[in-house]
Amino acid sequence: MYDLIIIGGGPAGVTAGIYAARKKLKTLIISKNFIGQAGEAGVIENWPGEKSILGAELIAKFKEHLDSYAVETREETVVLVEKKESFNVKTEDNSFLSRAVIFATGRKPKTLGLPEEKDFVGKGVVYCATCDAPLFQNKRVIVVGGGNAGFETAIEMKSYTKDVSLFEFNSFFSADELLQEKAKEKGVELVRDIKIENIKGENFVEKVICRDITTGKEKDFQVDGLFIQIGSVAITDSVKNLVDLNEEGEVIIDPKKNKTKTEGLFAAGDVTDVRDKQIVVATGEGAKAALSAYEYLKK
Amino acid sequence: MYDLIIIGGGPAGVTAGIYAARKKLKTLIISKNFIGQAGEAGVIENWPGEKSILGAELIAKFKEHLDSYAVETREETVVLVEKKESFNVKTEDNSFLSRAVIFATGRKPKTLGLPEEKDFVGKGVVYCATCDAPLFQNKRVIVVGGGNAGFETAIEMKSYTKDVSLFEFNSFFSADELLQEKAKEKGVELVRDIKIENIKGENFVEKVICRDITTGKEKDFQVDGLFIQIGSVAITDSVKNLVDLNEEGEVIIDPKKNKTKTEGLFAAGDVTDVRDKQIVVATGEGAKAALSAYEYLKK
Repeated sequence: MYDLIIIGGGPAGVTAGIYAARKKLKTLIISKNFIGQAGEAGVIENWPGEKSILGAELIAKFKEHLDSYAVETREETVVLVEKKESFNVKTEDNSFLSRAVIFATGRKPKTLGLPEEKDFVGKGVVYCATCDAPLFQNKRVIVVGGGNAGFETAIEMKSYTKDVSLFEFNSFFSADELLQEKAKEKGVELVRDIKIENIKGENFVEKVICRDITTGKEKDFQVDGLFIQIGSVAITDSVKNLVDLNEEGEVIIDPKKNKTKTEGLFAAGDVTDVRDKQIVVATGEGAKAALSAYEYLKK
Repeated sequence: MYDLIIIGGGPAGVTAGIYAARKKLKTLIISKNFIGQAGEAGVIENWPGEKSILGAELIAKFKEHLDSYAVETREETVVLVEKKESFNVKTEDNSFLSRAVIFATGRKPKTLGLPEEKDFVGKGVVYCATCDAPLFQNKRVIVVGGGNAGFETAIEMKSYTKDVSLFEFNSFFSADELLQEKAKEKGVELVRDIKIENIKGENFVEKVICRDITTGKEKDFQVDGLFIQIGSVAITDSVKNLVDLNEEGEVIIDPKKNKTKTEGLFAAGDVTDVRDKQIVVATGEGAKAALSAYEYLKK
């Protein structure tokens, strides 16, 4: 029986773990891989104190800090959280009991929702740019999505290949001005008002059939790599019965103490309805959740 | 006319500055000294990614990160914030205009409230342990306060002198278990249920007159350094007219977007009613406030 099980090993989960350890709670952290979206993020420039650091490097620093404490960690996927007298956290192969839980699973990438999209995953359709970027050396790349992630990916891809376009469904880009400027400087082709309707190819992606939203006309583009960067969804399957979700599918928390509707179950980071999905915000939320869990357990 | 003036150069203010710069807001940060409570904090072990770092070092890293952007900074003390059509931020010598303000002044130490206390400041009465610790080499030290700050100070003082006691008014210590254990290991004398009623000394502190709360009896202790670590109060004088304060004197914010009751005036960090006064929480709040200010200015 643990005092606390933390589900998720990203910035929120690991920070919660550090805080729980310092409060001497008997703590287990379960995470599929202790990498998560932050670990796949490419260059990060807005973690205070680090002008420029790779996501993987930052996450490794967090994990090393965590590992300096007596916190148990397990690389497994949680499939269900139940509450009877205590919490029962079930992974694919095991189950663990605890008096409190912090849910910090984060998010996973949104897909375009095209029927053929699944067939091309690993064959030209990419969700984790940092993971697969080097495979597209001198290839034709389209990045889908005009937010920060899309622009960051397009800029990154420019160091692998000169043929990089960024496609955005809306008529405006929502990325930071600085990123938009950088992309223009680097010569990323920016295309707005465009919708991808089909992906074609024999074995690998070869072209995309698009709709020009302003004219209504169809347009084809030859492409080798289609990098989908259109946002993400909260990973909540294992706790759906224990929490309320907002219309975005995010866990609703009390923003002061990170409580969910189930007593003893706290949530933190990008899986929650916190508005700003930022590493520095998620770490702060992780600390808050751990301090609330500690307060709950002390009662 | 600035887009944004950030008042305060601690973790919340500097993080807000980094985020504002990345959004290309014309930003000015005004802070007395860009040090604040975090910069005076001694060893910090709960900033994610750093197993152990001096407060001054961490704050310097934050500042260096900030200085890599085109953000203007000024070392001045803000005395009043007014709002007419825009904000007018007045320092002792100057005044600056902006369309939005983030208030992130943080906190200052609480005093015991004894009439003679002021007379002994710099003469044995210490609020910033990190600043003055080396002055008490081989002296008799009493640390007042059984929270994290008190225990951290007592542990730190043990490396300067063997004669360290920690006094707590309550019958329990509220510090992290880990810190309490460390203090015991180091041989800090722990005294509960004790109240300091007078400070005596010719030029410098020589003794304190205390009351044992359980027996009601008076007790004297010879002492050279009295380190007051009993908490802090929010620094709000310059914005009192523009915000609501809670009963602790903290700026009440909407926890999702860091708004105050005055449109265009946001607040972040330890000056607000955020429950957990932690560096990692304050940085997250700074980021949130900057993103909200950006959203407000874009309208």
